[in-house]
Amino acid sequence: MMQYPEPLAKLIESYTKLPGIGQKTATRLAFYTLGMEEDDVTNFAKSLLSAKRDLHSCSICGNITEDDPCPICRDKTRDRSKILVVEQSQDIMAMERMHEYHGLYHVLQGVISPVAGTGPEDINITSLLKRLQKSDEVKEVIIATNASSDGELTAGYLAKLIKPAGIKVTRLAHGLSVGADIDYADEMTLFKAVQGRTEM
Amino acid sequence: MMQYPEPLAKLIESYTKLPGIGQKTATRLAFYTLGMEEDDVTNFAKSLLSAKRDLHSCSICGNITEDDPCPICRDKTRDRSKILVVEQSQDIMAMERMHEYHGLYHVLQGVISPVAGTGPEDINITSLLKRLQKSDEVKEVIIATNASSDGELTAGYLAKLIKPAGIKVTRLAHGLSVGADIDYADEMTLFKAVQGRTEM
Repeated sequence: MMQYPEPLAKLIESYTKLPGIGQKTATRLAFYTLGMEEDDVTNFAKSLLSAKRDLHSCSICGNITEDDPCPICRDKTRDRSKILVVEQSQDIMAMERMHEYHGLYHVLQGVISPVAGTGPEDINITSLLKRLQKSDEVKEVIIATNASSDGELTAGYLAKLIKPAGIKVTRLAHGLSVGADIDYADEMTLFKAVQGRTEM
Repeated sequence: MMQYPEPLAKLIESYTKLPGIGQKTATRLAFYTLGMEEDDVTNFAKSLLSAKRDLHSCSICGNITEDDPCPICRDKTRDRSKILVVEQSQDIMAMERMHEYHGLYHVLQGVISPVAGTGPEDINITSLLKRLQKSDEVKEVIIATNASSDGELTAGYLAKLIKPAGIKVTRLAHGLSVGADIDYADEMTLFKAVQGRTEM
C-alpha cells in the first residue's frame, strides 16, 4: 500500500500530538504547511524550539517567564501587600488585561482534583506558603481559582492553611458564572469579580 | 500592560497562521507545547523544516514526493494505460486505500473555479496534455475531481480537451454524493464510484 512520503508522515504525526487534533485535521494541517511561505515555516520551527528552551517557571511565583524572577515579581511599583493566586499562567494575562489589579501573583499550575488524582502536594502550594512565611509585607491573599468544584475545593484548602497566619484571604466572587474559566472571562466580569471579592 | 514573554508570543503567532486556529486556540496550543516532552517538540520542529525542504511535486504527475519521479510513476508494475486525475495529493491516498486501482495518477493541484478566479492555466493541465502527447500507452483518463460544481466544470473542460485525441475519458460516478470531498469518502463508496464510472 502507498504511504505518504516520510517527511509528510512525520509532520502529520507531530500535529496529531496536539490536543484536539485527529488524523484528518493533522493531514490537512500538514498539507497546508507545505503550501506556506518558507519564512513562516522556519519561524514556526524556531518558535517551537525557543519556547521550549527559553521559557521557565518563575522561581518566586511560578509564572511562565524568560527571565527569573519574572517581570511582575521584579517590578518594584507593584503592590507587595497582595498576592492573587491563579491556576495557570494564562489567568494572569486575563487579570492584567483588566488593568485594575496591581499586586503580585502566584501560579498553582493546577488545582486539587480528587477525580484527576491531583493532591495539594502536586501543585505550587508549598512555594506560596514559603513566600508568606518569608515576607511580612503580604496582607491579603486573593484566591482566583476557577469557579469549578475543583477550584472551590482548592480555594477552601488554601484559606484553611493561610488564615491561621493572620493574613486576610479573599475569593473572587461576583460575575463569574459557575463552571466558567477565568481566562475566557471579559474584562468587565473580571473587574466585578475583583470588586466584589468576599472574605473567607 | 503585561505581555506574554517573547518566545511564547511568537509561538502563539505561528499557531494562528494555521487554518481554523484563532488567538484563543493558538494560546492553548502554545501553553500545551510548553508542557510537551522535549523530544516531541524537537521532532515537531524538525518535521516542519524537513517537510518544507525535502518534499516536492513529482515532475511527471504533480504528486507530493521526496524523490522525483514519485514512487508511483517509477513503479513498473502499474497499469500505464490509465491515468486517474485528482485535485490534490490527498485524493491519491484515498484511492490507494481502496486497493482496486492500479493505474497512474495526475494531480491538478486545484480546480478551475470562476468564483475563486482560478483558470485552466493555474492548475496542472498543460503537464497532463504533454503526458498524453508523449505516450501512446494511455487508453483512458479517469477524471476524479470532487463532486462539486468546480469539480464538474473542470471535468467537463478536461473531457473536451482530451476526447478529440481519441483517448477514452471517464468520470467517477456512483456513490459520491453531490458536494462530497473525495478524501473523506470511505473505501466502499470509492470502489463503487470507480466501478460505475461513465464515459463522457
